[in-house]
Amino acid sequence: MSQISDRLLSSAIHIGEMPSGALLLNDNALYPWFLIVPHGDFVEWVDLPLEIQNRMLTDINSLCGFLIGDEMLKVEKTNIAAIGNIVSQFHLHIVGRHSKDPAWPDPVWGHPDKRDYEAGEVERMLERLTGKIVSLRLRC
Amino acid sequence: MSQISDRLLSSAIHIGEMPSGALLLNDNALYPWFLIVPHGDFVEWVDLPLEIQNRMLTDINSLCGFLIGDEMLKVEKTNIAAIGNIVSQFHLHIVGRHSKDPAWPDPVWGHPDKRDYEAGEVERMLERLTGKIVSLRLRC
Repeated sequence: MSQISDRLLSSAIHIGEMPSGALLLNDNALYPWFLIVPHGDFVEWVDLPLEIQNRMLTDINSLCGFLIGDEMLKVEKTNIAAIGNIVSQFHLHIVGRHSKDPAWPDPVWGHPDKRDYEAGEVERMLERLTGKIVSLRLRC
Repeated sequence: MSQISDRLLSSAIHIGEMPSGALLLNDNALYPWFLIVPHGDFVEWVDLPLEIQNRMLTDINSLCGFLIGDEMLKVEKTNIAAIGNIVSQFHLHIVGRHSKDPAWPDPVWGHPDKRDYEAGEVERMLERLTGKIVSLRLRC
């Protein structure tokens, strides 16, 4: 199993594993913001083996389904992106957006606003997440 | 076949059809910037039927392969995103990036700089594109 870049871990929590890779939660409570980081030395989307691409398709559908369906989050739009101009290790962003969030309607990348998660807030989201996504194995 | 939103067509050229949908070229020559617009009333990625998602996977690989392999474009990174906070009709961005382009390393969305394509520039790119991607049918 490959390492996850320190740059990614400096602003996100490694919460578990999905079939296509590690699942991280960005530590900004303003947006429900996941990252999938496949294991291996990948930079570009086209570097990913087809098997991982296909698993990622399934994982994207699961995570977007969770974001849209979760009654607490009230997500109005999902944003999905592979950018990686700063941190080269391949990572896919899956972000739940709301028309009243601080960056709306702009993308979240580069927007400066941030709120830390409060005690118990991540745990409650993970509980709902594992209730919906059976392929997710939490780290602890 | 569904309509492509006027908002998308106001800043992009409909150049042809791929298996997953219409292929558009953003009319900003600063970046080689494609859009895939599946035919149908789709807003979210999860609205897309699995068959279209799978075709899109293949089309993403073809377009990213073209961007990275094309010797004229000298792309150093591909950026792929489904955002759609402003234009709700589902569209996927596939953008070739270069460390000397005006927005680097930020994402291109929302960056104000623009350059119009010069006479013949689009046609030359389309010629190279159709030479690489056999599943692309040009409009004219």
